[in-house]
Amino acid sequence: MEQKLIEQIVSRVLASLPELQQAPKAEQGIPVGVSNRHIHLSAGHIETLFGSGYALTKDKDLKQVGEYAAKETVTLVGPKGIIRNVRVLGPVRAFTQVEISRTDGFGLGVVPPLRDSGNLDGSPGIVVVGPKGAVTLTQGVICAARHIHMEAAAALAFQVADGDRVTVKIPGPRGGTFDNVLIRVNPDFRLEFHIDTDEANAAGLTNGDLVTLCK
Amino acid sequence: MEQKLIEQIVSRVLASLPELQQAPKAEQGIPVGVSNRHIHLSAGHIETLFGSGYALTKDKDLKQVGEYAAKETVTLVGPKGIIRNVRVLGPVRAFTQVEISRTDGFGLGVVPPLRDSGNLDGSPGIVVVGPKGAVTLTQGVICAARHIHMEAAAALAFQVADGDRVTVKIPGPRGGTFDNVLIRVNPDFRLEFHIDTDEANAAGLTNGDLVTLCK
Repeated sequence: MEQKLIEQIVSRVLASLPELQQAPKAEQGIPVGVSNRHIHLSAGHIETLFGSGYALTKDKDLKQVGEYAAKETVTLVGPKGIIRNVRVLGPVRAFTQVEISRTDGFGLGVVPPLRDSGNLDGSPGIVVVGPKGAVTLTQGVICAARHIHMEAAAALAFQVADGDRVTVKIPGPRGGTFDNVLIRVNPDFRLEFHIDTDEANAAGLTNGDLVTLCK
Repeated sequence: MEQKLIEQIVSRVLASLPELQQAPKAEQGIPVGVSNRHIHLSAGHIETLFGSGYALTKDKDLKQVGEYAAKETVTLVGPKGIIRNVRVLGPVRAFTQVEISRTDGFGLGVVPPLRDSGNLDGSPGIVVVGPKGAVTLTQGVICAARHIHMEAAAALAFQVADGDRVTVKIPGPRGGTFDNVLIRVNPDFRLEFHIDTDEANAAGLTNGDLVTLCK
């Protein structure tokens, strides 16, 4: 069968699927979400930093379902510097994870490896200080690799699959492309291109700006 | 004449030009030079900041002929923050120019517009403090647009001209492309791709890394 015919059939089938009627349309672009430095905490570390039996207080929901910015913040203390007011994100995680930019790393004196979330083996540690105590992490400091969250219906629309690495087109005077963007598909995910502050500032992007996938 | 024949002739003529024998070869790549925040000062501002009759002291030559990092530093004072130890670059310029990243701008409370060097009209000001006094700039704070310095021979080798805007290919896990890179050709220029710290950190680049031009 000719390639063109196959593409036409796939296109028509995709257009007729009911779950795609409300899904994001690929041609509408993907909204940018800029991740400032933040920390995810384990239950044990929440108690050490904020006190026995302490529970995080939700400040506001994030776009990804179930994720929220807590009212709590911590201080990161590295060998070369300190960063105050680092936001805690909820809910509680199995392992504490600190996400900073390379710029933050220079200030702290820590080199965060570029990692997908949850891949912490061999990453450096840091001292985390809260109002009731401090935790000396032996690992968990990373520079989060850029990624796109989406639901399965959006993955169909964009013709990508969980785990794919794609290239994203950036518009504007600081435009170009970002390679190696991880696709993450999950029912609780909402369409959003997560980048860190270095990437946002380098590309002149801010929350809600639209980018597109390169074919 | 056929396009292919034209390209073959141009290629042979270029290869035979004597000034190209020592010029950088396009296929060898372009070394990255990361510009940290810095300031170029006018003669009048040097006197206000460092004292009457003061002359800058060279610390080390930069790659671009005649340019140098001075021993002197200043403090930038913005509405939201301060940055100490901002390096002065020599030689003296007709107009004072402050080059900071967007990240620096957030800390200072100043939004630096993306500009080519020397294009300062309508840019914001800032307070600059030296050991002998302070200057309140009414303009001159910019985020320098990425650019490539080269001599005429290299421009021939790369088949670009002064003022061109090109796309640069970035290798590595944070790779991709940077659009709108200005080509600057001058006898005193040496081949170097100048980016700021946001761009370097976002792309995982450091001084001396090699990038290539996209065709």
